[in-house]
Amino acid sequence: MTLPDSLAGTTVAVLGGTGPQGRGLARRFAAAGLPVVIGSRSAERAAEAADALASDVGGTVTGADNAGAATAGDIVVVAVPWDGHGDLLKSLASELAGKVVVDCVNPLGFDKQGAYALHVEEGSAAQQAEALLPDSTVVGAFHNVSAVLLEDPAVESVDTDVLVLGDVREVTDLVQDLCTTIPGVRGIYGGRLRNAHQVEAFTANLISINRRYKAHSGLRVTDV
Amino acid sequence: MTLPDSLAGTTVAVLGGTGPQGRGLARRFAAAGLPVVIGSRSAERAAEAADALASDVGGTVTGADNAGAATAGDIVVVAVPWDGHGDLLKSLASELAGKVVVDCVNPLGFDKQGAYALHVEEGSAAQQAEALLPDSTVVGAFHNVSAVLLEDPAVESVDTDVLVLGDVREVTDLVQDLCTTIPGVRGIYGGRLRNAHQVEAFTANLISINRRYKAHSGLRVTDV
Repeated sequence: MTLPDSLAGTTVAVLGGTGPQGRGLARRFAAAGLPVVIGSRSAERAAEAADALASDVGGTVTGADNAGAATAGDIVVVAVPWDGHGDLLKSLASELAGKVVVDCVNPLGFDKQGAYALHVEEGSAAQQAEALLPDSTVVGAFHNVSAVLLEDPAVESVDTDVLVLGDVREVTDLVQDLCTTIPGVRGIYGGRLRNAHQVEAFTANLISINRRYKAHSGLRVTDV
Repeated sequence: MTLPDSLAGTTVAVLGGTGPQGRGLARRFAAAGLPVVIGSRSAERAAEAADALASDVGGTVTGADNAGAATAGDIVVVAVPWDGHGDLLKSLASELAGKVVVDCVNPLGFDKQGAYALHVEEGSAAQQAEALLPDSTVVGAFHNVSAVLLEDPAVESVDTDVLVLGDVREVTDLVQDLCTTIPGVRGIYGGRLRNAHQVEAFTANLISINRRYKAHSGLRVTDV
């Protein structure tokens, strides 16, 4: 597909780009023709992951530590584990100033009965990011997309919609365009950032569904 | 369609059956051939709604006050406003003992920016019901189904899945069967009751989606 005009010349950085969700998103963005910077705590591991991805899907993929990736990206996707999410973002507030930050972190706990939503003081991971990054524009997206499907080169089309949450129309529009670079995916406006919690937490339900039905489930919004 | 065997001889009561969601569900259950009892604070208004529904879709539809409906139903659907939910259920604990209670209440607030999820002490409306009804088996379901579509006789098939949440397998199975009596709807197991909050709250996102896209949106789970 052709990239949407809104994304011409846009570099996408993925913080936590060596984890499953981050790797999967980086793969799809690189495959779409977007310059991608993989961020990781270790610049060396980031560079290894970038080399592997570039040789696999082509395109311009580089690696850096998370601060370097945050500096390099126009859109910065946050795909780090919930544990450490706040500390990392606080430390990158100046690198992320003026940028679009796409938070896709799901604050979940796990026990014998499966996954459940954790309490987040600010309401959601996305709202925590907003509180810590007053000079960035924070959007929530990509919460419910299966990392397994994103990472699987045999999956040509990912059968899910992505809900995009945020308070600035031009930025949610841009991130909706970013969603559509993944074949099969639609980016659907899903409400304001204050309604991000339930979208993050919904991943616990999808994990339950995956267990019960042996599936890699996703969501489609009907009548849209 | 033929009723699933699991629902043979089952009477469905709908508390709050004169509100939009309750009326819509009662209509669909009656149309499927299930005996339906519409409950309301006012037995008279319940009887009027029951008569109107019976003359419209046929079947066995009666009306009663909420206590009478709770007594009459084998499966009791709770479709009352969030405001008053706890008080009503507390008052009906003995009528509802031993029964399957299907809570479809969404604790939402509304302001200029639209809908948002309210904080619920017990975690969710469904968990509040469970706490107040220790002798009932509580399941959450029908949270995200558009009342407009349920109520519209011209809508032959409702394009959505219903997530069914609960901790007792045979009861979630039964309520999944109840979902399938609505043409177009699949009942999908959505996890334990502790994961009901985000499904209730998700209705706020669907309301945002409906505004943005001028839609009556619903959800489909993919790969299931």
